[in-house]
Amino acid sequence: MSVSESPVSITATDGPGQPIRTPELEELYRGFEKELLVPLWTEIGGLMPAQPQSEAQPHVWRWNTLLPLAAQAGELVPVGRGGERRAIALANPGLGGRPFVTPTLWAAIQYLNPAEDAPVHRHTQNAFRFVVEGEGVWTVVNGDPVAMRRGDFLPQAGWNWHGHHNRTDRPMAWIDGLDIPFQYYADSTFFEFGPDEVESRDAPERSYSERLWAHPGLRPLTQLQPTPATPLLAYRWEHTDRALAEQLALEAEGYTATVERGHAAVRYTNPTTGGDIMPTIRTEFHRLAPDTGTATRREVGSSVYQVFEGRGEVTVGATSWTVERGDLFVVPSWQPLTITTDHGLDLFRFSDTPVFERLHQDRVQIDNREGNVQ
Amino acid sequence: MSVSESPVSITATDGPGQPIRTPELEELYRGFEKELLVPLWTEIGGLMPAQPQSEAQPHVWRWNTLLPLAAQAGELVPVGRGGERRAIALANPGLGGRPFVTPTLWAAIQYLNPAEDAPVHRHTQNAFRFVVEGEGVWTVVNGDPVAMRRGDFLPQAGWNWHGHHNRTDRPMAWIDGLDIPFQYYADSTFFEFGPDEVESRDAPERSYSERLWAHPGLRPLTQLQPTPATPLLAYRWEHTDRALAEQLALEAEGYTATVERGHAAVRYTNPTTGGDIMPTIRTEFHRLAPDTGTATRREVGSSVYQVFEGRGEVTVGATSWTVERGDLFVVPSWQPLTITTDHGLDLFRFSDTPVFERLHQDRVQIDNREGNVQ
Amino acid sequence: MSVSESPVSITATDGPGQPIRTPELEELYRGFEKELLVPLWTEIGGLMPAQPQSEAQPHVWRWNTLLPLAAQAGELVPVGRGGERRAIALANPGLGGRPFVTPTLWAAIQYLNPAEDAPVHRHTQNAFRFVVEGEGVWTVVNGDPVAMRRGDFLPQAGWNWHGHHNRTDRPMAWIDGLDIPFQYYADSTFFEFGPDEVESRDAPERSYSERLWAHPGLRPLTQLQPTPATPLLAYRWEHTDRALAEQLALEAEGYTATVERGHAAVRYTNPTTGGDIMPTIRTEFHRLAPDTGTATRREVGSSVYQVFEGRGEVTVGATSWTVERGDLFVVPSWQPLTITTDHGLDLFRFSDTPVFERLHQDRVQIDNREGNVQ
Amino acid sequence: MSVSESPVSITATDGPGQPIRTPELEELYRGFEKELLVPLWTEIGGLMPAQPQSEAQPHVWRWNTLLPLAAQAGELVPVGRGGERRAIALANPGLGGRPFVTPTLWAAIQYLNPAEDAPVHRHTQNAFRFVVEGEGVWTVVNGDPVAMRRGDFLPQAGWNWHGHHNRTDRPMAWIDGLDIPFQYYADSTFFEFGPDEVESRDAPERSYSERLWAHPGLRPLTQLQPTPATPLLAYRWEHTDRALAEQLALEAEGYTATVERGHAAVRYTNPTTGGDIMPTIRTEFHRLAPDTGTATRREVGSSVYQVFEGRGEVTVGATSWTVERGDLFVVPSWQPLTITTDHGLDLFRFSDTPVFERLHQDRVQIDNREGNVQ
Repeated sequence: MSVSESPVSITATDGPGQPIRTPELEELYRGFEKELLVPLWTEIGGLMPAQPQSEAQPHVWRWNTLLPLAAQAGELVPVGRGGERRAIALANPGLGGRPFVTPTLWAAIQYLNPAEDAPVHRHTQNAFRFVVEGEGVWTVVNGDPVAMRRGDFLPQAGWNWHGHHNRTDRPMAWIDGLDIPFQYYADSTFFEFGPDEVESRDAPERSYSERLWAHPGLRPLTQLQPTPATPLLAYRWEHTDRALAEQLALEAEGYTATVERGHAAVRYTNPTTGGDIMPTIRTEFHRLAPDTGTATRREVGSSVYQVFEGRGEVTVGATSWTVERGDLFVVPSWQPLTITTDHGLDLFRFSDTPVFERLHQDRVQIDNREGNVQ
Repeated sequence: MSVSESPVSITATDGPGQPIRTPELEELYRGFEKELLVPLWTEIGGLMPAQPQSEAQPHVWRWNTLLPLAAQAGELVPVGRGGERRAIALANPGLGGRPFVTPTLWAAIQYLNPAEDAPVHRHTQNAFRFVVEGEGVWTVVNGDPVAMRRGDFLPQAGWNWHGHHNRTDRPMAWIDGLDIPFQYYADSTFFEFGPDEVESRDAPERSYSERLWAHPGLRPLTQLQPTPATPLLAYRWEHTDRALAEQLALEAEGYTATVERGHAAVRYTNPTTGGDIMPTIRTEFHRLAPDTGTATRREVGSSVYQVFEGRGEVTVGATSWTVERGDLFVVPSWQPLTITTDHGLDLFRFSDTPVFERLHQDRVQIDNREGNVQ
Repeated sequence: MSVSESPVSITATDGPGQPIRTPELEELYRGFEKELLVPLWTEIGGLMPAQPQSEAQPHVWRWNTLLPLAAQAGELVPVGRGGERRAIALANPGLGGRPFVTPTLWAAIQYLNPAEDAPVHRHTQNAFRFVVEGEGVWTVVNGDPVAMRRGDFLPQAGWNWHGHHNRTDRPMAWIDGLDIPFQYYADSTFFEFGPDEVESRDAPERSYSERLWAHPGLRPLTQLQPTPATPLLAYRWEHTDRALAEQLALEAEGYTATVERGHAAVRYTNPTTGGDIMPTIRTEFHRLAPDTGTATRREVGSSVYQVFEGRGEVTVGATSWTVERGDLFVVPSWQPLTITTDHGLDLFRFSDTPVFERLHQDRVQIDNREGNVQ
Repeated sequence: MSVSESPVSITATDGPGQPIRTPELEELYRGFEKELLVPLWTEIGGLMPAQPQSEAQPHVWRWNTLLPLAAQAGELVPVGRGGERRAIALANPGLGGRPFVTPTLWAAIQYLNPAEDAPVHRHTQNAFRFVVEGEGVWTVVNGDPVAMRRGDFLPQAGWNWHGHHNRTDRPMAWIDGLDIPFQYYADSTFFEFGPDEVESRDAPERSYSERLWAHPGLRPLTQLQPTPATPLLAYRWEHTDRALAEQLALEAEGYTATVERGHAAVRYTNPTTGGDIMPTIRTEFHRLAPDTGTATRREVGSSVYQVFEGRGEVTVGATSWTVERGDLFVVPSWQPLTITTDHGLDLFRFSDTPVFERLHQDRVQIDNREGNVQ
């Protein structure tokens, strides 16, 4: 590989920690380039900053813009083998136009027309669906049909066969979250095609997985070993809503039940371990009572929030927005986040925090208190 | 310590592995006794049998005998500081009259008259209550009042303050299960007295712990670390009943959901870990559909069952009984157990299996298949 | 079962928490006896004391008494199938003459004559050997011959085939430690006979297990999964001695390296987990420099110490002894222990602490500071 | 943000899974670009391939080229605050000229002149040093001076203070490995400057950490809790060499001890857990006996090897090289690797496998057998 072809290009600069620029130094740098070598001293500032400097930017996508574009795609773009899904991904403006909402996470709006099928496939990427509005689609996971309705959270761990079909005469849209960017970056992705049509067109109210697993504190004797991902394929809105309402009611009665005053929150967990629902993705639901403001919190790792209901003011770093139902916003690593609301705000959140906790790189700072992520 | 005082007494015998009986041997044995020594070769047969030979015996206690005796105690025996509880323990006939239902487990019927209080205390023993009939008592755990009703399971892990009070004009009886014998044997027991009266006389439908924790797959962000015992203080009958009914319905629809044909079962678990509700005690609920017979199963560790509803035939080793509502029976370690029913049978079970799993001494044999306990 | 045959016998007494003694009460108690029932209120004081009240007593066994008795047994008692081992167990004076040094632990001196074999067997009991003096015996574990020499610790986890043979023309004695009492109590014991002679008469300096595992921080790629017990079958004195000497040297250089001033200590660990060498038994080696005294420490769980070298004063509860090479003494649960020495003292220790840690019943008190066992 | 400024650019193409190219579609795509949206169907082929398609390329760097360039840097580039280290990183030709040897790993040659200091700092990046030749430098970790010599492996977990100094009159070079690319990608990096000079100029043979921890199977009672990274700061060549020699000797004696015929290997582990020495990096040492060839192995995750001694043929995917002492080569994710040698080959290896194991994305294929990474 000749110098001209080398992907490496080193520029001698002045400044602290830099050697004096001499012809000998330039010659050395050309030698480095030729041999595919890069000195630390010219790169350390960017590679090893005092604290995370994410290239990802805070940004908001508006539901009332997303949904019409998805509907147009519904008219122009068929769903089928090859394209696999009518999913439109959020591309963080700091990440060079890639369909990555953060360096590790994928977020997309998926849209399915009446009577449409999304073909069956499986992949190592961990995925989930969250439904901000509508109903009528069943996602079929290893043959188990799971209804999708407003407020439901549906985890879909890696390497399970799955397809979707719309049973109604109305289109339906929802949010897909995956760890596509992480697995793409880490070179760990495997993918297989399945049948073009879902294995079952049944449309039960509750899936096999819920009938077996959605009983608080009870597990079937047929499944006693811990599994890396949750066996429960739907976390229904009625349970989430009740858990949040109880926390606020308990707070009002003087119990310790909320994260901070007026701020109720639950984490979706794997009933076989009590931990996160999937190895790479954390999901939570937060409810802020009227006239509530959160502490300012920064974490290692990135998050995406979708407003489920209500209206509030969000500040991420130097950026602020007023957000409403369906809006999605992103919080890059170590960017401070503050949320306030006058009339109440319900928020779904997903993040890559399990990656950092499992690798002992988690860190959190609340106002001025440091610690590990809770 | 002179020979006559020595607790050690060694008898020379003939037989395989025994030395020839000579005056010198007798003199040696006297020397052993004097120095508090015992040879392995005279003891090994009893101490290290080919498989567990429990001194505990299979036995059944009849509810229609227990309850009247408890009621008599209600008339003659006050509840108060010192005696602490009006609890009457099952004494396994093989264990020398000690109040131990198995070598490791305690089972008692507790009886509380109208308006009575059982005073507050705490102890390292892990405990639970199970209610086969009646209602009206609240158990107050660290100030949280927990209603007790038919079918409810109420864990009570070690070192939590607790007392009970009867809010009604009718007496109530229930079953207490504890690891008293194990902790007595192991010399690990600590005990402290609390107030003579419970901290709260509130009688809420649902306790603080349920309002915070009884939501399937959801955990509050205020409590994210695993705890050795469950934070959920009541597992309600409606959930247990529904989970069991679903398993049988799923079986009828062709799904894998039951332990074996007609045999539904759930384990009560700690939502922070997915494991057992307490470190030393496992609790389960089993439902046998009409005309069901279980495989013959033997396990390392001992179990106690209480019939919740229905009627069935139970065989433990060489012993068989017909059992009905409220009856309690004991299955010693490694004794084969078979249960059959014509009209259906609901059974609550508790056992010491977590001790063996955590110490890697668990073993199970189902018909002729060996393996580890599931 | 008639009253006269019932193992239960209840005596009405006066005093706090006891009901008034009336004919009706006596009749009730007779009814309890008949039905194999025991009231809590007559037993609670003994069963649930404020803190552990072990029946085991502090006691010391003198090496210069044990060894001659073992030698006499060597003349009078053959080793062979049935008796299995020429092992003489220490019987704690508080435990009714049973061959139990504590409620959970077995300690025995084993003695093997020149050219003798102890036949091959396996059992679920976890075992180890510790050698206070002598050499010449190889213990053969699953065919791997392991040399035994002064200062060596040889773990022998449950369910591994093992036998011993003496290759020399001199007898050898050592200490066996097992969890026989615990497994006997818990009804978890299985036992199988193997060949009458050991599989291998090789006498290598170092066993297969050491050659594969005794390299600090290195594990073979052939064995990467954690195992419940250590795969390393010998912990050699040269390593233990060096580790202890280094701790005292580091202390002298001003580093933190010792438990307390002049008190060096190591724990024998399972290299696949970093935890205890076996699920039920903890083993440690302690070295006290001259003119050292330990803090007073009490723990839940029982320990046995053997003096390896030196001389010291030991106080357990109200009892004190001067101990020397080979002497064995027992520390019952929650009895305060203090050790002092003028000229230095080396101590081997084993205990049942892992049982309590795994079941979350561990507790320790050092002088007046409480906490969990370290 | 106007279209022209949008980082998103979508090109309509023909082919399977692509919608028909119409003006309406183009308009839709412009709308996507404007709103920072990207359709899955135009990207899925690249993002979700059937198996990992790493952009990283197999490549080899020659020691006899690296070392002279490092020596030149020694003459021209001072070491000091700001540049921090005279480290020259290997830049994988597939990764756009970034100083990343794989997508997740950093590998560099570091060079220190006589009497030079590399200033003290700490960072969240996990690091290690491996010494292929030379000696005379001490790395000082939290004040503990650790000698560096040929064959030594020195782990350096994140967030520990460390600096280096050369005590000799000769320069020294070694290899640094870090997870810089991973933490840069994941936005988890923190960095702090320490003193310009190392805290200690002592030059002990063995460090405090070794004197406390380098005793097989023994741990100090002062440090009984598991730690995320190893407390042992040097794994000496004498131990590694002996462990490998023993495996080959055991193989010759008929024992199971090697990965495959003629292939001995050890993993460097954390003695507090038995697991990898750091949360994100795995390190191993492999020895191939003369006339040995390995099975063809592919793994999820990337590896870097350095030849320590000997000569061999390496094939990675479609590329083959003859490698010798000091040469470094890279194996991208899922690229098949085969190594053969006529005269024997010693190889140091590091990889990012712990990331995949902890996130349940590990996969391995040996010849045609699939499974999880061992």
